[in-house]
Amino acid sequence: MKRNKKELYPALWKGNYVAMIDQTLLPREMKIIKCRTYKDVADAIRAMKIRGAPAIGVSAAMGIALGAKQTRVGNMNDFAKEFHHVCAVLSKTRPTAVNLFWAIARMKTVFLAEKEKNTPVQKIKNILVREALSIFKDDVENNRKMGRFGQSLFQKNSRILTHCNAGALATGGYGTAVGVIRAAHEARKNIFVYADETRPYLQGARLTAFELKTLGIPHALVCDNMAGHLMAQGKIDAVVVGADRIARNGDTANKIGTYSLSVLAKHHGIPFYVAAPLSTIDMTLSSGKQIPIEERSSNEVVKIKNVEIAPRGTKALHPAFDVTPAKHIHAIITERGITRRPFYKTFKKWLKRTRTLDP
Amino acid sequence: MKRNKKELYPALWKGNYVAMIDQTLLPREMKIIKCRTYKDVADAIRAMKIRGAPAIGVSAAMGIALGAKQTRVGNMNDFAKEFHHVCAVLSKTRPTAVNLFWAIARMKTVFLAEKEKNTPVQKIKNILVREALSIFKDDVENNRKMGRFGQSLFQKNSRILTHCNAGALATGGYGTAVGVIRAAHEARKNIFVYADETRPYLQGARLTAFELKTLGIPHALVCDNMAGHLMAQGKIDAVVVGADRIARNGDTANKIGTYSLSVLAKHHGIPFYVAAPLSTIDMTLSSGKQIPIEERSSNEVVKIKNVEIAPRGTKALHPAFDVTPAKHIHAIITERGITRRPFYKTFKKWLKRTRTLDP
Repeated sequence: MKRNKKELYPALWKGNYVAMIDQTLLPREMKIIKCRTYKDVADAIRAMKIRGAPAIGVSAAMGIALGAKQTRVGNMNDFAKEFHHVCAVLSKTRPTAVNLFWAIARMKTVFLAEKEKNTPVQKIKNILVREALSIFKDDVENNRKMGRFGQSLFQKNSRILTHCNAGALATGGYGTAVGVIRAAHEARKNIFVYADETRPYLQGARLTAFELKTLGIPHALVCDNMAGHLMAQGKIDAVVVGADRIARNGDTANKIGTYSLSVLAKHHGIPFYVAAPLSTIDMTLSSGKQIPIEERSSNEVVKIKNVEIAPRGTKALHPAFDVTPAKHIHAIITERGITRRPFYKTFKKWLKRTRTLDP
Repeated sequence: MKRNKKELYPALWKGNYVAMIDQTLLPREMKIIKCRTYKDVADAIRAMKIRGAPAIGVSAAMGIALGAKQTRVGNMNDFAKEFHHVCAVLSKTRPTAVNLFWAIARMKTVFLAEKEKNTPVQKIKNILVREALSIFKDDVENNRKMGRFGQSLFQKNSRILTHCNAGALATGGYGTAVGVIRAAHEARKNIFVYADETRPYLQGARLTAFELKTLGIPHALVCDNMAGHLMAQGKIDAVVVGADRIARNGDTANKIGTYSLSVLAKHHGIPFYVAAPLSTIDMTLSSGKQIPIEERSSNEVVKIKNVEIAPRGTKALHPAFDVTPAKHIHAIITERGITRRPFYKTFKKWLKRTRTLDP
């Protein structure tokens, strides 16, 4: 796929490299960086040049394809060793988004099946590239399906609050939560979006506002601490967010601040929706308590670009995610449809016929 | 009073000018600006070089004293006209903090009493200066009393969350919410403070962290959206905030984000306290619905110093305050003691013997 003005693809496969939008520079600068090795891809994920659970999964698959393709070894044993090393490096980039591990598992499954069949190394390389591209294309297609299902949840003239960026930039393309919003907009529902700026990384201010502007969807930026005030004033009709990992009971890890929003929505009787592909569901975890929460650097809180906002030496907490309990979630929107509590039953049914993370 | 390293006074009377800490430059730079006219004081309040309800009241009184002192008119009629003009200019600087109107009313009451007595203009000028100084000294003294009362609410080893800056810099000196925290620290209660950074102006990151560091009180900075997560993890024992205006039923206007915190505290069964001097209570308002909420510029959200955090042209909401309903407040801490619901009864009793806002 080629870039065009309307569509945003955070990572595109270019044969010898992965072309990635450096999201840390948005919205000021649209810079495409060339990740020429799997290590470049791993570095970009770690530094959050690409972020968002599905986008991490897609780019990790491309990174593995790149790593596999670039191995200089001819025999299967050495190739297998190298392949698993590449997977291991990518698996250590970020701990919370399960789509990363799901994508790696999917690449591994394909590799092991071909290895079993004694497929020649050169051919396996091509098959792995094809698989990465298919993970990418599936994700975009699934987002569109999610959008069609999810937009049905919104009345005309709805004012929708979203947190962080779960848009095209967080996925293969199109978006999960923003995808649903986008589909409602495309269905001419006259919606209005409040975008949480989402400290400390400001994905809402930098990325969601950017996407909404590009798409021509009416919106206003708000600070994270304004949500309760807006809800009390009756200005929010629904909340929709993405997800980084969903346990089998429906507990959902997402960007820090999501849990607070879910409590506020509950208090004000406002529906709270999660939009995520099935690849975000981790059936190996019985509840959100088991989801590892990434702690990032204090520096990312006390510095905004070059501006130090606190006295030198101030320590800040930086849990990058939090867990919203299933009981706060009205519905989870996936590419297979919309499901409500108890989520486990539907997840089990849906995932029977889908390749999922098999630890 | 002179400045010393330990104590912070946001505004000091210097006879011919008001020496003010430019709080917009903190914590990077401790710059004292000289407000040489009442207009300088009004400008400083409007631009938030000085902020915090009690500090606004104190500096407005000093501004009035300065304006009165600098009038060149000799006769009472012209002086009265000029005096009321100065009061009118200062009253239009910011709409929410009632301490501003309270301080102006207190200056007016003194002026009118002296005018009634035909006190000579020159003598009235001196009396007005004395009144402004007394508003300043009373505020510092009241904060210390508040601290002594309020600290009794905290167990040993309490982990306390505070929002915005209700410290020395927000008052005549010492602080309200931070004053209570400070008194608990001075009572060797081994407390730990989580300071909300408080977007968009970052008073928590810039000012509260600065004060806590200066005072040697253990603390960590957190983003506003982390409070729910910390509460769910059992890391917060109490919330204490200041106030900009308290209606007679106890509904409390305070920095945007306070209301969300009160909902989160309620959900998690965590006590929520307000610390404010009696001058913050507005007995003319039956509930918080009547408190005017200042809307500030979108620019203050989309720009952090010189860094633009959103696409050019993005509109952001910027309600500077919100209202926490009395039912979310466990106790209000004042210089007269601690009161619980129904607040009206105690307020009425306390304010009978106190000069308050008489509209």
